[in-house]
Amino acid sequence: MHGLMQEYPLTIQHLFTRGTRLFPRKEIVTRTDDGYHRYTYADFAERVQRLANALTTMGIRPGDRVATFGWNTYRHLELYFAIPCMGAVLHTLNIRLFTEQIEYVIADAEDQVIFVDADLVPLLEKLAGRMPTVRAYVIMGKPAAETTLAPAYDYEDLLASASAHYDWPMVDENSAAAMCYTSGTTGNPKGVVYSHRSVYLHSFGVCMADSLGLSERDVVLPVVPMFHANAWGLAHAAIMTGSKLMLPGRNLGGAQLVEMIEQERVTVPAGVPSIWIGLLAYLERLSVEKPIMPDLSSVRAVPCGGSAIPPALMRGFDRFGLPLLHAWGMTETSPLASVSRVNSGALDGTYEEKLAIRSKQGQPVPGVDCRVVNLDTGEEVPRDSTSVGEIQVRGPWIARAYYHDEGNTEKFMDGWLRTGDVATVDADGYLQIVDRTKDLVKSGGEWISSVELENLIMAYPKVLEAAVIGVPHAVLQERPVAYVVPKPEYTDQLTADEILEYLRPQVAKWWLPDQVLFIDAIPKTSVGKFSKRELRDRYAVEGAATAAD
Amino acid sequence: MHGLMQEYPLTIQHLFTRGTRLFPRKEIVTRTDDGYHRYTYADFAERVQRLANALTTMGIRPGDRVATFGWNTYRHLELYFAIPCMGAVLHTLNIRLFTEQIEYVIADAEDQVIFVDADLVPLLEKLAGRMPTVRAYVIMGKPAAETTLAPAYDYEDLLASASAHYDWPMVDENSAAAMCYTSGTTGNPKGVVYSHRSVYLHSFGVCMADSLGLSERDVVLPVVPMFHANAWGLAHAAIMTGSKLMLPGRNLGGAQLVEMIEQERVTVPAGVPSIWIGLLAYLERLSVEKPIMPDLSSVRAVPCGGSAIPPALMRGFDRFGLPLLHAWGMTETSPLASVSRVNSGALDGTYEEKLAIRSKQGQPVPGVDCRVVNLDTGEEVPRDSTSVGEIQVRGPWIARAYYHDEGNTEKFMDGWLRTGDVATVDADGYLQIVDRTKDLVKSGGEWISSVELENLIMAYPKVLEAAVIGVPHAVLQERPVAYVVPKPEYTDQLTADEILEYLRPQVAKWWLPDQVLFIDAIPKTSVGKFSKRELRDRYAVEGAATAAD
Repeated sequence: MHGLMQEYPLTIQHLFTRGTRLFPRKEIVTRTDDGYHRYTYADFAERVQRLANALTTMGIRPGDRVATFGWNTYRHLELYFAIPCMGAVLHTLNIRLFTEQIEYVIADAEDQVIFVDADLVPLLEKLAGRMPTVRAYVIMGKPAAETTLAPAYDYEDLLASASAHYDWPMVDENSAAAMCYTSGTTGNPKGVVYSHRSVYLHSFGVCMADSLGLSERDVVLPVVPMFHANAWGLAHAAIMTGSKLMLPGRNLGGAQLVEMIEQERVTVPAGVPSIWIGLLAYLERLSVEKPIMPDLSSVRAVPCGGSAIPPALMRGFDRFGLPLLHAWGMTETSPLASVSRVNSGALDGTYEEKLAIRSKQGQPVPGVDCRVVNLDTGEEVPRDSTSVGEIQVRGPWIARAYYHDEGNTEKFMDGWLRTGDVATVDADGYLQIVDRTKDLVKSGGEWISSVELENLIMAYPKVLEAAVIGVPHAVLQERPVAYVVPKPEYTDQLTADEILEYLRPQVAKWWLPDQVLFIDAIPKTSVGKFSKRELRDRYAVEGAATAAD
Repeated sequence: MHGLMQEYPLTIQHLFTRGTRLFPRKEIVTRTDDGYHRYTYADFAERVQRLANALTTMGIRPGDRVATFGWNTYRHLELYFAIPCMGAVLHTLNIRLFTEQIEYVIADAEDQVIFVDADLVPLLEKLAGRMPTVRAYVIMGKPAAETTLAPAYDYEDLLASASAHYDWPMVDENSAAAMCYTSGTTGNPKGVVYSHRSVYLHSFGVCMADSLGLSERDVVLPVVPMFHANAWGLAHAAIMTGSKLMLPGRNLGGAQLVEMIEQERVTVPAGVPSIWIGLLAYLERLSVEKPIMPDLSSVRAVPCGGSAIPPALMRGFDRFGLPLLHAWGMTETSPLASVSRVNSGALDGTYEEKLAIRSKQGQPVPGVDCRVVNLDTGEEVPRDSTSVGEIQVRGPWIARAYYHDEGNTEKFMDGWLRTGDVATVDADGYLQIVDRTKDLVKSGGEWISSVELENLIMAYPKVLEAAVIGVPHAVLQERPVAYVVPKPEYTDQLTADEILEYLRPQVAKWWLPDQVLFIDAIPKTSVGKFSKRELRDRYAVEGAATAAD
């Protein structure tokens, strides 16, 4: 027996139409090099329709891929909606990939048009002549200067000459809406293809009270790049629910973030831990130098994911009244998969007890099924906070395959996505990630969590950042090595012995890193995570030599 | 081009599994005649599975209709999940329908088993021998006494003898999950058939921050009956998100409601205006009689819909710190369609300004498309707070047809549900319902809003309830007549002239009711709304005679 409910497709068109019809006067603000650009949802709605008409004129048809190569700006936001709403596929190119990887993903996606921020044109020009699928380039921000990208058009010219009204076509909810490539540790980047249905449902997920609870009253600052897993779905959810948006452009330093938060009364700034490590260091310096601190009291939650939040960062943010909200996910999960909130039964706990809960990756959000599986036995691990296994997830906004690699069974198994994250589960179903499967250090037949060691080291007051990798060992198979970035004021003081002395009472003896190496900065991946691959490469060249000293 | 997201069906199984896995220790409390019954989500999960096994043993197969005839209790909640999760269809019979209507809907739905609360057995026995599709009756609450319903089983016996584990089958998201009949003003009740998909999506809708924002931290008290539009989706949403549930049983008087709210620290009590009119009168009496008032400070929002909230009720509730949250919808809309929240731009307004916003029916929630259409021209009315038209809605949890009446084009038109509610829209898209199409009073070619007159009369301090109907008039076609229930302490004092004097400065002269008639109570429909049909019938007999005096 069938339900007798409307066969109404779940598409991004609904998110766009709802937001722009109900909240025509709400603002979208972008920080530029010259100041603040601001306009309303009504302006946005008109420009999105102009853009769709311009794309139609350029020959873009349903299913065609249209790429972006840009920062978080209002123009990027317009592309976010115009492309999928007209039935085409938004491909957000990651500007931080290696040139060869960018070349690969453009070819793999068969992008037909690329929209590129003016200041990023030189980066893309490195590939001029090597993008055979691309029929046109559209330069955003400044009138197109001389460029080797051809043919090149100016974004504002295109919009000015297009009609301000577009009738959205009927779109199948399972059709592709957007693509994002994930840069694996091995091989070429892999394409994740989001559907209208998955983006729609994920937007609902983001707005639920117990996930990120996005609301019309929020002022959302997506520091997370729009080329990184749909900016965590914040742009879609914000427009649907009528939040004011503060798009930060390209300058994401502590001073700029503080300026935006204070001036625009941001309630929800969201980004990866490395961004907040930078902001915390800035605030700590300010608190020494300035008698009056900036007013950041508008902030209600700081969603943070992409990699685990070091507890020292969470404590530091709490001191400044900035409550980090730990979320977990990945490109393949749209990305929101779990959020760590203190539930009703734990609200009366001490600060330390609540910090311990908030430091976990949390409970799966509605919509996401989750299991943690012992990699040897294939069984779910007991919910004892101790047994470790791989997190596997499924649900309507979880990928079932990679583009052009649909037979991949290593990553997708029996309807579950194998995330590669290793975690424990507690009695309340809270995940705590111990490590990536590939970053666990296997020493003498036992596992050492690189993440746990990093968190301990980063809690040391003289340390800014730390990353731990496993390096080959003749007898024990692998041993941990720590790379440490001291805070600027301790650069020439901090010693390896001091770190080891600090660690000694806190970990089993065999967990102590074999080496503590100092470094100017932890190399980051294209999405801002610690790049352990680069560290391992570096160690292979320099570190082993140091060890041999 | 297709998305590469998992084909994961949107079913009630996910809501059930998520809630019971993540929140095994959360409580479900039921108020009974003997006290409070309480158990945990874990207990609930086990009993739901036992119930599914029992139903399987009774021969229930996917698609079969299983009916309930009961109050809001934990057993009813078990049926809410066991029946659809096993693939069968939950049919919530409205215990307040006329006997003939109940007979009709059981036959129309072809119910195979009916679960009935012990104290309601006599009501159902009136139909003994007239329910040919029903193969069995299950009595809930007390061991089955002598009954003419046969064969009859005891609920607890069935569960005790069933296995505690059930493997849910794969269920198509578009298959029927539940049925609810809506009692129209003419003809037989009409069946609305919810799908798994619609219930799943509606549950997400209920949990979004800007709709009802249901959360794990909430203690939800659905005063709205579980046989009335799925208890507004609160039961499904609460289980999904891990809220504590307080199920009120059959006693819904002011004293009982206060007891439950105070004792269980209810945060979200939800019900129709007539329930809250009763509670307000009780609290006002208490405040005169008692030196210490009950502590109702746990309440964060009182969702209220089904009919418009009289502003006087909202003011009264505000005085007791109980913020009514106006929602609008109907059986055909699952029901949540709009919610009235004060948005960011209006937060600095005065109390009166905010009250005016909160008294509207609000903005459509995400998922629901809405238009207000001039019934003569078929065009959308301007958003000027003045022009009136019929509200029409569409979306994934809006009905597209009635059961056994799929060709009905009067109610369903071009993919839109014609709601029959007449409203204005303001610049922010807030709906304000003026009346039902059928309750508008057409006098001398102009429309008079019966709802507006009622709200004015109910704002008069000596009035408990009031309803206005249109009665035939030889010259002007129709004229308004007011039925008024004085507060008990003014029963023999209040006069028609006093009401008319009070109204005179507030409305156009031709809006003044031709008659003001006093009555002991406004008759209510089976779902607690003012029954204007009954009033019109009554007027035809008595009222006209009064007028002739």
